[in-house]
Amino acid sequence: MPKNKRRVSIIGASGYTGSELARILINHPNVSIAHITSETHTEKLFSDLHPQFIGRLDTHLVSSESVRPEDQDLLFLALPHGVSMEFVKRWSAEGIKIIDLSGDFRLSDASIYEAWYKQTHVFPEGFAKAVYGLPGLHEDQICSANLVANPGCYPTASILALAPLIAGQYVDPRQVIVDAKSGTTGAGVKANNTTHFSNVNENFKAYGLGTHRHTIEIEEQLGGLHSSGTAQVQFTPHLLPIDRGILVTAYANMDKAINQKEMTGIFREFYKKAPFVRLRNEAPAVKDVRGSNFCDVFPYVDDRTGKLIVVSVIDNLVKGAAGQAVHNMNLMLGLDPTAGLKDIPMKP
Amino acid sequence: MPKNKRRVSIIGASGYTGSELARILINHPNVSIAHITSETHTEKLFSDLHPQFIGRLDTHLVSSESVRPEDQDLLFLALPHGVSMEFVKRWSAEGIKIIDLSGDFRLSDASIYEAWYKQTHVFPEGFAKAVYGLPGLHEDQICSANLVANPGCYPTASILALAPLIAGQYVDPRQVIVDAKSGTTGAGVKANNTTHFSNVNENFKAYGLGTHRHTIEIEEQLGGLHSSGTAQVQFTPHLLPIDRGILVTAYANMDKAINQKEMTGIFREFYKKAPFVRLRNEAPAVKDVRGSNFCDVFPYVDDRTGKLIVVSVIDNLVKGAAGQAVHNMNLMLGLDPTAGLKDIPMKP
Amino acid sequence: MPKNKRRVSIIGASGYTGSELARILINHPNVSIAHITSETHTEKLFSDLHPQFIGRLDTHLVSSESVRPEDQDLLFLALPHGVSMEFVKRWSAEGIKIIDLSGDFRLSDASIYEAWYKQTHVFPEGFAKAVYGLPGLHEDQICSANLVANPGCYPTASILALAPLIAGQYVDPRQVIVDAKSGTTGAGVKANNTTHFSNVNENFKAYGLGTHRHTIEIEEQLGGLHSSGTAQVQFTPHLLPIDRGILVTAYANMDKAINQKEMTGIFREFYKKAPFVRLRNEAPAVKDVRGSNFCDVFPYVDDRTGKLIVVSVIDNLVKGAAGQAVHNMNLMLGLDPTAGLKDIPMKP
Amino acid sequence: MPKNKRRVSIIGASGYTGSELARILINHPNVSIAHITSETHTEKLFSDLHPQFIGRLDTHLVSSESVRPEDQDLLFLALPHGVSMEFVKRWSAEGIKIIDLSGDFRLSDASIYEAWYKQTHVFPEGFAKAVYGLPGLHEDQICSANLVANPGCYPTASILALAPLIAGQYVDPRQVIVDAKSGTTGAGVKANNTTHFSNVNENFKAYGLGTHRHTIEIEEQLGGLHSSGTAQVQFTPHLLPIDRGILVTAYANMDKAINQKEMTGIFREFYKKAPFVRLRNEAPAVKDVRGSNFCDVFPYVDDRTGKLIVVSVIDNLVKGAAGQAVHNMNLMLGLDPTAGLKDIPMKP
Repeated sequence: MPKNKRRVSIIGASGYTGSELARILINHPNVSIAHITSETHTEKLFSDLHPQFIGRLDTHLVSSESVRPEDQDLLFLALPHGVSMEFVKRWSAEGIKIIDLSGDFRLSDASIYEAWYKQTHVFPEGFAKAVYGLPGLHEDQICSANLVANPGCYPTASILALAPLIAGQYVDPRQVIVDAKSGTTGAGVKANNTTHFSNVNENFKAYGLGTHRHTIEIEEQLGGLHSSGTAQVQFTPHLLPIDRGILVTAYANMDKAINQKEMTGIFREFYKKAPFVRLRNEAPAVKDVRGSNFCDVFPYVDDRTGKLIVVSVIDNLVKGAAGQAVHNMNLMLGLDPTAGLKDIPMKP
Repeated sequence: MPKNKRRVSIIGASGYTGSELARILINHPNVSIAHITSETHTEKLFSDLHPQFIGRLDTHLVSSESVRPEDQDLLFLALPHGVSMEFVKRWSAEGIKIIDLSGDFRLSDASIYEAWYKQTHVFPEGFAKAVYGLPGLHEDQICSANLVANPGCYPTASILALAPLIAGQYVDPRQVIVDAKSGTTGAGVKANNTTHFSNVNENFKAYGLGTHRHTIEIEEQLGGLHSSGTAQVQFTPHLLPIDRGILVTAYANMDKAINQKEMTGIFREFYKKAPFVRLRNEAPAVKDVRGSNFCDVFPYVDDRTGKLIVVSVIDNLVKGAAGQAVHNMNLMLGLDPTAGLKDIPMKP
Repeated sequence: MPKNKRRVSIIGASGYTGSELARILINHPNVSIAHITSETHTEKLFSDLHPQFIGRLDTHLVSSESVRPEDQDLLFLALPHGVSMEFVKRWSAEGIKIIDLSGDFRLSDASIYEAWYKQTHVFPEGFAKAVYGLPGLHEDQICSANLVANPGCYPTASILALAPLIAGQYVDPRQVIVDAKSGTTGAGVKANNTTHFSNVNENFKAYGLGTHRHTIEIEEQLGGLHSSGTAQVQFTPHLLPIDRGILVTAYANMDKAINQKEMTGIFREFYKKAPFVRLRNEAPAVKDVRGSNFCDVFPYVDDRTGKLIVVSVIDNLVKGAAGQAVHNMNLMLGLDPTAGLKDIPMKP
Repeated sequence: MPKNKRRVSIIGASGYTGSELARILINHPNVSIAHITSETHTEKLFSDLHPQFIGRLDTHLVSSESVRPEDQDLLFLALPHGVSMEFVKRWSAEGIKIIDLSGDFRLSDASIYEAWYKQTHVFPEGFAKAVYGLPGLHEDQICSANLVANPGCYPTASILALAPLIAGQYVDPRQVIVDAKSGTTGAGVKANNTTHFSNVNENFKAYGLGTHRHTIEIEEQLGGLHSSGTAQVQFTPHLLPIDRGILVTAYANMDKAINQKEMTGIFREFYKKAPFVRLRNEAPAVKDVRGSNFCDVFPYVDDRTGKLIVVSVIDNLVKGAAGQAVHNMNLMLGLDPTAGLKDIPMKP
């Protein structure tokens, strides 16, 4: 391992976020992957699970028991929600920097978590420590955080679409509609009827109407940006027959009349220091950002109806998970914020 | 040609609606295909253009010049808008029954047409004769019509999703949002950048924000159902990486408080005589109706937000075009309304 | 149930062959579906499992225990191999006509079955009774059979591609290569890593090199057509990222020199009475036959290399399973061979 | 532009190879992109044509007239065949290093070119100068070449699959079958019926039987490796409904009996210094290499039939085009052969 490189480990090898973290970190100029853990595949190589890494990351998987936090600069938890909280509880006392990619610490407190996740939280104290890791909105806090809750994929695209309008008090935060569409990797690596090829391919459906857990995550974050302190979002996710990509079509009602030029200006100003948000002058497609950490945003004023529409796109595994986690890591370790995240979107 | 069968012809062979009409009509118990026309492929067989028909419909294509309306019971115009109006103008004086699958006669008058289609209309008198062919809403008029304007694909799914709520005065018709997603056959058979495989595959995008021609078609039809006489719809179409299928997610604000049970009852009552509208108790997927004339509808009340959401799905080439045209033909010729339309959706 | 219709039942409701049988039989002019069985979903409707049938086939699933063979004209076994043999054993004594869609009785005897299927056969006597149900090759025997082993999907496409050449002694039956590609429904309805969307989508792979069970089925059938009595086939299946469709590219070495015109003539003659084999004059695509019972075949002589190539395509769920089973049923019950099988391929 | 970086230009901006070269070169540690040319879009930015580059490569496109060869270390010609030869003719006198990604200089002489490409060659002298740029086979010549003909996509996968067997004299070079399957980007960026979404999606077909231009390219290269000096290949390409990826299934007859262990050893030895060829112990999938410069190869001996089968996969735009071109550039400029080519395959 080269000198001067920071040591980071990935807890959880088998899911998509684990392999995507490895894909990005392996070419990161300032960090090295110390360990990748798995409790069920400890006899295997990482490249046995993910053959795309053959010859590049043939490292042995180890149990998380063998990770010594004091030897690590940072840990990524690429674990299911409900499991992740156990690890945060175990390790947060040790002062190690942690980025949790699960949903376990994204909300404001345990009671709200339990209401939406239908599950008991084992580490309610963690909520106070956790910083919501959406760079651009909470950048200073991220830089000094020990525990970052990496945002959900849908919330990342939704909040970035609406934040300038809500923070600028331009729209009614209680009449927001987020119609969201996600690729299938958002449903995880596990084989089940939802992810069966013939149930997804040549198909399209809405799911989780009115009940998806990301609803409250979006509402809390947008509410925090508005003078009223609250937001209500009608959130409808849909399943796209593609691997990667989220497209959000957000609708809002003006509280102040603004025209297209003003709307564009509001977004340009809001994101002038955001290295990964690209303001577009036409509706973006998910392939424009695939494999990259970009979020492309197109705000539109419909003069005929007086409504505001914002279309945003991300790669759910990068900007919606592993890429944003690496961005957060860069901030937490004092590195160049864009280090390791310079890949051009893979199109076609 | 068997006795007693009605003679119908398809004007326009090369597009998807032409081949889909042939696919349905060839197994229709009461009609025979007299001619299929093409101005550019008159030396070819229909099955040369569409090899799926080899051995089943190896009929010679003929020029529309050679179609004698007096020998036909009904003509289907499967032509681009702008072209179709010329044929309607030519033939409507002859008293022949016509179903126009283009957008040329769906709106209320020529001035509105010209504003949205950016094109001069050559037969403004046609609007007064034309009946909007959405069975269930205008069934009596369709039965006695000589000219039926077959509805657009997006409008079919959108209007069927919202008609019970608008007609029942349950929602504000000026705050309706229709977020619609269509398969690529909706973009037509012509090869261009929009339909290039690598621009569609693994991709998803919004298009035509605020300007799509189907907006006014939906607004006019919904407006006609409401006591106020008008409706305003925020309509956003998206392009899905699939061949067939439209899914509409419609959002509306209650004018009268209704709960889930009442909403279901409203839809059940409204569609009790509609043979192709299926009321679902969960959000449908586009593959549930693929290849069939069904429109599956799921109305949902979000108690938390007070909003109404309706999800509807159709096959854009069947219920959104050729199947609905055959349904209209059945009504116009006094046949069993469901004749020729009994195919089960092809899933998987 | 209409008079005069034959009563048939489908044993096994949950798989793709079960639902595809129902899709075809529901519009068959001469038969009615008496029962559809399931041992695990007996409390449900068939349309609960397969929502595409809502409103059309809302029949209650029943246990196979409640099917009285004496009330049935024919039974379709849409069961996994290994399970099917149990039912054949139970019912074959009763004289009921059975079409088994599994692989349990396609081979010549139990020892060969056990060598390739790695499984004990519980009803070795069945092999003598079973007729291999490939109409065109064994039509007379099918007409008088009580037990038909419905061919495998790959074998159907492979045998139809090569039978005219092997039967005519034009090629060396021991140097045949079958490079086959199948859609994912061939892997079944069960969710596992093989059928996970992201493992199939945008992907393509070979599998089962040298060991696939369909190898011996193809070899036995082709061998039976040749004067030598044997054939050796190098069979390589691949998994396509599509739902339906098999394309076979078969390579053979000439034993007699023939040119393109002769080759076309050989195929035309061989299939002159086969209602579902279409001889093409260019390489067919799988979508040309999707949803239909057609097998499109294109034989090609490469003058430069002296090799023969045949490309064939089928829909694996129709001609490769349920459609061919219905064709067999028509023959066994003395009906029009093409009854219920007149659907045009669904393209696009 | 940083000091010490070599200056390279891309001639031809609009195709997939042009954008893929830019995607790779932009993160290459040792080169800078000096110019990207287009004759038809000179008023635009590169990112106008390819929005994935917005914010990363917003460079103005220039006419090739304005490229001064003497200021360039190397030129990539990302042009159609037939056009490329004009540029090579113009520039090769100037001593500038050129990598031609078209097919114009891959064959042995102009007469063979004209026979297979059905087109007059304007620069027959170029064939003597051109080195076939398949690193591993012709590495020394590439290092000292001024003109490299970058291999075709199918030939790259086919030759790498068979070279160890042919070079080792293990198989009959006149009985080779290459059954190849390619993603749709191989058909280019131009919109036509071949690349129309609904003609590709859910579809699969063979094309160019016996006549594809890559046949002769494979034969010449393999022939050059064999003691007989010639090879005859039955090459059948197929079109996959995916963006990227080629899978080759190659069949050969043993001239010497070898077993699986020996076959594996032959490949290991042959590719021991090839940084991008990965020897696999199971059949690889195209997604295992997507977006990367890897070629994964699986050689298999079928003991039952005595045949050898080799499955190989590449990304046609990377190893089959732009990535291999960058590999060649690295060799020609004396850089680390793997520089700029360390991306992990993007999976899922």
